[in-house]
Amino acid sequence: MASEDGEVVKNMQVIFRDYVSGFPKETDMEVRESTMKLRLPAGSNGLLVKNLFLSCDPYMRTRMAKLDIPGYVDSFKPGSAITGYGVARVLESGHPNFKKGDLLWGFTGWEEYSLITAPEACFKIEHTDVPLSYYTGLLGMVGMAAYAGFFKVCSPKKGETVFISAASGAVGQLVGQFAKLFGCYVVGSAGSKEKVDLLKNKFGFNDAFNYKEEPDLDAALKRCFPEGIDIYFENVGGKMLDAVLLNMKIRGRIALCGLISQYNLEQPEGPYNLMNLILKQVRMEGFLVFDYYHLYPKLLEMVLPQIKEGKIVYVEDTTEGLENAPAALIGLFSGRNVGKQVVVVSHE
Amino acid sequence: MASEDGEVVKNMQVIFRDYVSGFPKETDMEVRESTMKLRLPAGSNGLLVKNLFLSCDPYMRTRMAKLDIPGYVDSFKPGSAITGYGVARVLESGHPNFKKGDLLWGFTGWEEYSLITAPEACFKIEHTDVPLSYYTGLLGMVGMAAYAGFFKVCSPKKGETVFISAASGAVGQLVGQFAKLFGCYVVGSAGSKEKVDLLKNKFGFNDAFNYKEEPDLDAALKRCFPEGIDIYFENVGGKMLDAVLLNMKIRGRIALCGLISQYNLEQPEGPYNLMNLILKQVRMEGFLVFDYYHLYPKLLEMVLPQIKEGKIVYVEDTTEGLENAPAALIGLFSGRNVGKQVVVVSHE
Repeated sequence: MASEDGEVVKNMQVIFRDYVSGFPKETDMEVRESTMKLRLPAGSNGLLVKNLFLSCDPYMRTRMAKLDIPGYVDSFKPGSAITGYGVARVLESGHPNFKKGDLLWGFTGWEEYSLITAPEACFKIEHTDVPLSYYTGLLGMVGMAAYAGFFKVCSPKKGETVFISAASGAVGQLVGQFAKLFGCYVVGSAGSKEKVDLLKNKFGFNDAFNYKEEPDLDAALKRCFPEGIDIYFENVGGKMLDAVLLNMKIRGRIALCGLISQYNLEQPEGPYNLMNLILKQVRMEGFLVFDYYHLYPKLLEMVLPQIKEGKIVYVEDTTEGLENAPAALIGLFSGRNVGKQVVVVSHE
Repeated sequence: MASEDGEVVKNMQVIFRDYVSGFPKETDMEVRESTMKLRLPAGSNGLLVKNLFLSCDPYMRTRMAKLDIPGYVDSFKPGSAITGYGVARVLESGHPNFKKGDLLWGFTGWEEYSLITAPEACFKIEHTDVPLSYYTGLLGMVGMAAYAGFFKVCSPKKGETVFISAASGAVGQLVGQFAKLFGCYVVGSAGSKEKVDLLKNKFGFNDAFNYKEEPDLDAALKRCFPEGIDIYFENVGGKMLDAVLLNMKIRGRIALCGLISQYNLEQPEGPYNLMNLILKQVRMEGFLVFDYYHLYPKLLEMVLPQIKEGKIVYVEDTTEGLENAPAALIGLFSGRNVGKQVVVVSHE
């Protein structure tokens, strides 16, 4: 594909227009065709890659605002392509970890071809006997978030009760399956009958409910957890967190993975029931996956055999074509996706 | 004092009238004279005590509401005397841990004489070369809350930055001094110039501010902590917590000891900036002192020499007479007290 002197190719890109407040819209992004010389700049230790799959993740909403948080990812740059996790094929490598033809997952651009300038943060894909798109999900950042969030932040014990919100989503479906395999009692909430059916019938949750059809979330949780909740894996925030706070058991743990219900609000909601953290001696802890990548080999070791034996399943919502990526990303915030939202850029 | 056949004495009591919503008033309690036979019931393994000092503590507000929280203390019982921590002299003992004449601290009644039915939860006072009232404060439950909250929940490291709200209060003044002696940089907030002066000049805080005179709490914290806060010892909640959330450092810790600004609100405030727990990977943990009493010998071992060497000081706000106890308790919620609020029931 890359010629010696650098073939110039068309490069479709998803450009971030400007910082967003409130609910993001497709028009906050622009799909635009540019060109790219398919050659690594002289002396570069980067990678020239062809993007195959892109990952749509809720945390990307935070990057649509102007951020200045040390240790966190940067905001998107107005006028430049969106960046995020993806799976790509190396066309040319200036880095000893990678060679032409390798597959990798890591931070790349929302475009057909990218120049990756931080290849040391990318992971070489060694196992290709599973769907490649899984490296945007259970075998990538998302899997690490579920693994670290559940096993490291929640400090689970066998037999404990676990509640997961946005439970059919990219992370939630994994946390639920990890918790079940570990020996916990697992309940999830989701926003449609279809998703609740997935939780109960495909992912093996003990119970599940559609939060949109529950007039009283506190009552729904008391029905599912008459003895209370040991572990809450938080993906949504707002009213659900408040209801959970009323139902935590003594010395319970809450892992804050995301607060998707709050990202588009000008003024976030509550939580109002924080006093329960004291009364029940609860630990609530925010975490970022970046801190846990040293455990990635452990995730693979655990999950790869489970995938092959059918003990862990993974549901993806696949969108074809970079031109449909903005709609796929925006869809996350209305829960349009069923399972992990992936964009296919190229089937090679 | 106790005669063989049980002298009947007058027993002034502070009676809890009924469950409270909103701001508590003195008239939610009634000071009433009853009588008591000064003899332990036959076969009792309890203690008959004369109360000397009573402790006014913010957590008592939660007990004015109807509670049903396993592992937490009970609500006050309408029509019965208020209960709480105090220092008392044993008049008669049915328990092998105590004998007549012993001094103890623990759960007792807001009255002149009490029958303690759970003596195993009381601590015998062995060291009387310090003010006895200190056993309602730095040598009692309050000292344990400061000790456990700071050293166990906050996991401090030398050189870290520590912020304490309600910093001149019973717990706050101790946490600040513990943190200073441990080698941290310590800033406190309080609600008057007098209290701020205490923080800076008596307790040796590095800096302090009057939150009532700060139009922008976020700006006040940024002024005091240009690099951010590693540890927040939370006594107040509400707007202060929200401002702190904006200023936490990566992997910071928040120990939730109390939320006094919220106790009298029908609908608690926020916090609205919870997302910062994720972005900065912050742990926020509620704790109750009851879990840490096994560490009480360690507290004494640390604090008794420090008191004698003048390395730790303790400011008390002393109210004379049981009849003034309701006003003393209510005063906590408007910050009328300066330092630990104690009620003297008897000088013996």
